[in-house]
Amino acid sequence: MNYRIAAIPGDGIGVDVSVEARKVLDRAAELNGFGLEWTEFDWSCERYTSTGTMMPADGVEQLAAFDGIFLGAVGFPGVPDHVSLWGLLIPLRRAFAQYVNLRPVRLLPGTTSALAGRSADELEMVIVRENSEGEYSQLGGRHNAGRPDEFVLQESVFTRVGVERIIRYAFDLARTRTGRVCSATKSNGLIHSMPFWDEVFAEIAAEYPDVHSEQCHVDALAARMVQQPDRLDVVVASNLFGDILSDLAAAVTGGLGMAPSGNINPPGEFPSMFEAVHGSAPDIAGQGIANPVAQVLAGAMMLDHLGETAAANAVRAAVERVLAEGRVATPDLGGKSTTAELGTAIADAL
Amino acid sequence: MNYRIAAIPGDGIGVDVSVEARKVLDRAAELNGFGLEWTEFDWSCERYTSTGTMMPADGVEQLAAFDGIFLGAVGFPGVPDHVSLWGLLIPLRRAFAQYVNLRPVRLLPGTTSALAGRSADELEMVIVRENSEGEYSQLGGRHNAGRPDEFVLQESVFTRVGVERIIRYAFDLARTRTGRVCSATKSNGLIHSMPFWDEVFAEIAAEYPDVHSEQCHVDALAARMVQQPDRLDVVVASNLFGDILSDLAAAVTGGLGMAPSGNINPPGEFPSMFEAVHGSAPDIAGQGIANPVAQVLAGAMMLDHLGETAAANAVRAAVERVLAEGRVATPDLGGKSTTAELGTAIADAL
Ligand SMILES: CC(C)[C@H](C(=O)O)[C@@H](O)C(=O)O
Ligand SMILES: CC(C)[C@H](C(=O)O)[C@@H](O)C(=O)O
Repeated sequence: MNYRIAAIPGDGIGVDVSVEARKVLDRAAELNGFGLEWTEFDWSCERYTSTGTMMPADGVEQLAAFDGIFLGAVGFPGVPDHVSLWGLLIPLRRAFAQYVNLRPVRLLPGTTSALAGRSADELEMVIVRENSEGEYSQLGGRHNAGRPDEFVLQESVFTRVGVERIIRYAFDLARTRTGRVCSATKSNGLIHSMPFWDEVFAEIAAEYPDVHSEQCHVDALAARMVQQPDRLDVVVASNLFGDILSDLAAAVTGGLGMAPSGNINPPGEFPSMFEAVHGSAPDIAGQGIANPVAQVLAGAMMLDHLGETAAANAVRAAVERVLAEGRVATPDLGGKSTTAELGTAIADAL
Repeated sequence: MNYRIAAIPGDGIGVDVSVEARKVLDRAAELNGFGLEWTEFDWSCERYTSTGTMMPADGVEQLAAFDGIFLGAVGFPGVPDHVSLWGLLIPLRRAFAQYVNLRPVRLLPGTTSALAGRSADELEMVIVRENSEGEYSQLGGRHNAGRPDEFVLQESVFTRVGVERIIRYAFDLARTRTGRVCSATKSNGLIHSMPFWDEVFAEIAAEYPDVHSEQCHVDALAARMVQQPDRLDVVVASNLFGDILSDLAAAVTGGLGMAPSGNINPPGEFPSMFEAVHGSAPDIAGQGIANPVAQVLAGAMMLDHLGETAAANAVRAAVERVLAEGRVATPDLGGKSTTAELGTAIADAL
């Protein structure tokens, strides 16, 4: 079996960590009797600077036939974020109906939590983030630009289809885990979108009487991730809330350097896309000090998605073994190793 | 000097903690030679249940002549939050142009942080939350209700006036503190509102060359509050971001039981309103176990606002002394004392 993978290393440390993650994934493939056939795309802020676009006009079509997309991080000083992200990451998420952004976090062996007195088994959860609509919308604009009475409108869009499918995904996932779902809401402040979200959540919850469901305002939920993270397992959230809560969940477990992310098209009509939760971190780019673990774990999620569960598990086990030993660790993990040394160590641990 | 204060104990533990906070404030007034003349209003979910409205139609006029408003918490099961909050709390914030929601947090003596290895001097910051517009707007609605193609729009509104004044307030405040301001943004996801916010932030920052300014995406900022809280002092944020970040800031310091909040009308044309950050917690209401410290500290903020700085400082010192001793502590603080015992201990410590 040969899988065709589109690699978009992107910008900054996205490039650094992608190289190492591919090294690990290639080794896992070799050992598990399948092949990964990589095609690399230079879509990035660098490309934008020289050509004026983040990707070619037919970018989406070029990717459509791949079995998976492996994305580094995107973003670079000088290119406004709303240009770089809305010219690549966000259009891909939408064109390929990757309406689930799956962000599992847990405290890995050999790493410590920022929280006091929490053990690994208390710190394991998954954020199921809506990834196609919600607060991230192109609708809106500016009125009276440049005048004292200037104002801006920004529209959020929540469709029944969009809300139902993400919540149903969360309940299905909960059945394979602890059987608990918590929905992030803010119906006391956002009086149109969130009461609707809550209504759909209640409808779907009724279809899953075996799953324990609850809802929590996003402000209280953020506090709870710090004060009682052990009481959370599957957290389902809108695009913006999921964005915030998943960074926070990463921070209370092993940090951003450890958190992978899958942009999933559940029906499999289109390719899914895998990336680290962290950004391109231009300040440390190219220095060989970025932690490649998040990108490697994103690769493991990609292998899961391709059905290569044994290889995916092997990659995760290799990561855990190397971290537990602590011999090879990048600066954020308290060590002095380079990105390449950690990548190699994980590949060798396979 | 006699100050006229409107007391709205509200619902649940709002009532429990307000009684104790008033006990402390009355004692502080007595000792500092001024008077607090309280007028109580029963505006609450209970009132809604019997009369159909949270407050009377002329509620705003009734409060307009007071020197301050002292609010417990609002909210009760059976009354939807968007009814209870938009029928009382939010209209008051807006009618009285309380456009600043000031939320200072710090780790108090005798309490411990949820974060590992952080000392009190690393955990002190203030969230300056926009309190009159932004994501909390009445604009929006539902299309195709009940049909499969149903969708909801929710509008956010950012005005130049609104954004300028909150950011300017944050910079002025920073001058009286460490001289550092961090702005919460999300211009990479929300491409209308947040680029505008950033633009205004940059303009105002240029007026304050002596203040160190930076901006941070709200997702990364949430992570930073957990991983590097010591690098934050004044954080300025939109209504929703400020809501989330202030609960989080409370959680990483002493918890929600400790966090006060002032809804401030800076020009002083209208009364300002002081409340705890926590909610009405119906599950523990009336049991006498709620921690009154947040409400007491909200009272100290009110005294500050009235210009009674000596009394305000005395209240804070009394709180610190009682907490440091640890003899009288409510269950959330690891003790067995009642709300009233803690209230009395603080009043006596004055
Ligand atoms: C109750 C709710 C509407 C309110 C808010 O979000 O403003 C509360 O969470 C707060 O922080 O004061
Ligand atoms: C870069 C940004 C647009 C993106 C998002 O908010 O979706 C990122 O923060 C993420 O979480 O994937």
